[in-house]
Amino acid sequence: MHTNKNTVAVIGGGSWATANIKMLTDNATPKEIYWWMRSATQAEHIERFRHNPNYLSSVEVSIPAQHISTDLKHIISQAEFIVLNVPAAFLKEALADITPEDLAGKKVVSAIKGIVPDENLIIGEFLNQRYNIPFSNLLVLSGPCHAEEVALEKLSYLTIASPDTELAACFAGMINNRYIKTIVSDDIYGTEYGAVLKNVYAIASGICHGVGYGDNFQSVLISNAIRELERFVEAVHPIDRDIKESAYLGDLLVTAYSQFSRNRTFGNMIGKGYTVKSAQLEMNMVAEGYYAVNCLHQVNKNYKVFMPICEAVYAILYQKRPPALEMKHLAEQLS
Amino acid sequence: MHTNKNTVAVIGGGSWATANIKMLTDNATPKEIYWWMRSATQAEHIERFRHNPNYLSSVEVSIPAQHISTDLKHIISQAEFIVLNVPAAFLKEALADITPEDLAGKKVVSAIKGIVPDENLIIGEFLNQRYNIPFSNLLVLSGPCHAEEVALEKLSYLTIASPDTELAACFAGMINNRYIKTIVSDDIYGTEYGAVLKNVYAIASGICHGVGYGDNFQSVLISNAIRELERFVEAVHPIDRDIKESAYLGDLLVTAYSQFSRNRTFGNMIGKGYTVKSAQLEMNMVAEGYYAVNCLHQVNKNYKVFMPICEAVYAILYQKRPPALEMKHLAEQLS
Repeated sequence: MHTNKNTVAVIGGGSWATANIKMLTDNATPKEIYWWMRSATQAEHIERFRHNPNYLSSVEVSIPAQHISTDLKHIISQAEFIVLNVPAAFLKEALADITPEDLAGKKVVSAIKGIVPDENLIIGEFLNQRYNIPFSNLLVLSGPCHAEEVALEKLSYLTIASPDTELAACFAGMINNRYIKTIVSDDIYGTEYGAVLKNVYAIASGICHGVGYGDNFQSVLISNAIRELERFVEAVHPIDRDIKESAYLGDLLVTAYSQFSRNRTFGNMIGKGYTVKSAQLEMNMVAEGYYAVNCLHQVNKNYKVFMPICEAVYAILYQKRPPALEMKHLAEQLS
Repeated sequence: MHTNKNTVAVIGGGSWATANIKMLTDNATPKEIYWWMRSATQAEHIERFRHNPNYLSSVEVSIPAQHISTDLKHIISQAEFIVLNVPAAFLKEALADITPEDLAGKKVVSAIKGIVPDENLIIGEFLNQRYNIPFSNLLVLSGPCHAEEVALEKLSYLTIASPDTELAACFAGMINNRYIKTIVSDDIYGTEYGAVLKNVYAIASGICHGVGYGDNFQSVLISNAIRELERFVEAVHPIDRDIKESAYLGDLLVTAYSQFSRNRTFGNMIGKGYTVKSAQLEMNMVAEGYYAVNCLHQVNKNYKVFMPICEAVYAILYQKRPPALEMKHLAEQLS
């Protein structure tokens, strides 16, 4: 590990991980960047051709080939900042061989936006409980940000949250650049839950579209969704926050109004009558909101927040309630 | 005038007026509906063929032919509720022959969403000052609602605002139906200004798109816009309101995220380098936000609210500032 230099490792080989590599590279602060991915084929391709064969393939990867590896322990040992960027559903499996000692003293950034299944914990809580990482060493990296637009160098604003806002500012200084602006926040709970819930609301939005509701209803749905989100994070972690900030409302908008959102597409298929299984098969990937809404349903048993949109999505996906009927019932509860 | 029956007159022949006629007709409360429009050709066409030749032509108009007229005094004399639905820029001209006596005792509903040019007053203030209509007889009818989706009978939520919320509820009962839900509010200032400002933000959104910004930036712009709107209405009329409600945030979303918004289209052309004049000529219609931003700029001289988005649009449209440069400057002020 280089002691006089900033060192960052990105864990994961998907499009958001690739976008993270690009922003870190295009940032002016001198640093060493490391990259772990599961697939050896993918790693070899990137080492050789400097482009990710599967995601954001237009991005030129300019970190040294020897900084790319499928050996997670090794990559983690090299870096001070560890940016976790694997799907929440696979996080436990990905970290199976990692011990608390491996992560001791590391600053761990969650770029995951999810809840750890079975545990029903946000990433920060999970890392704290399982790996003894103090909250003051935990960060959350959030949007509103489509990875595709990072590849195109479109101006984007990221939020970096940590209980230690100086640490957040330090990481922000390593990732901002001419097309990435950063906003520092102390709200890891609100930022994580906002990023999780937006996927559920994108599913709701897709279902409504699939069932036949139009843009008028969509705008009512989203204006109710941000109020539902506010109620929930206020119950879970009541601090002074403005839910209309980019990290919360902006992140919801960029997802719910995107035609490219996997969650919205998944919801749309459900609304049109696909079963969950056939929609997943057809899409050949997983909409994160599908797992999230189940976790949220469990978590909310403790808080009992009025969450009619989440409950409607849960009822449709997990209790096989007919989408049209459930959305009609939901519409009665909106204002 | 029928004394035992509800009587409503819609003033204006555009698409939102046509949508109003349809909702009123599809509402179950017995009532007489009257309709004024300027064009005799249009009126004759509707009387004969029961469809508006120019706007929402799919809608079947089922009010009696003798209830349609180009005689404004006559139409106003027939009805208890007068729904004003002409562009704000033409309101003074449309009402030129109308006296305070003509409107005495009438309940006047503004469905206009604009500011009266030169006067720099919202419609309610103008009607109060010029026609002595007490505020307790004034109502505002607002979205979020594309007229096109009313024609398609897509579920939509309208907000009816009046200082007299019982009166608002009474009018709501005359216009709601199986696809129109109504929300009653006491906030005519916030509802009117929200409806006006959303058009300016839709122009801003179009300019950003035209200049080359993507969806990530768009979501940041809109999450800043709702905060700017909140600051402004809080300064103009400080009452307890939740700006995330459908009348404010929903209305902003349905306009700013619509590909069909004239204001957004106009902004997009400006962003791509059209002059204001050539964009107006090309579109062959007027984007209401173009007039509104000038009025707002004047009104805000009294309040001095921090409104970087409005100011950027004003600078581009009225001070010929280069859109790309001005938006870059704006981006520095967003969070």
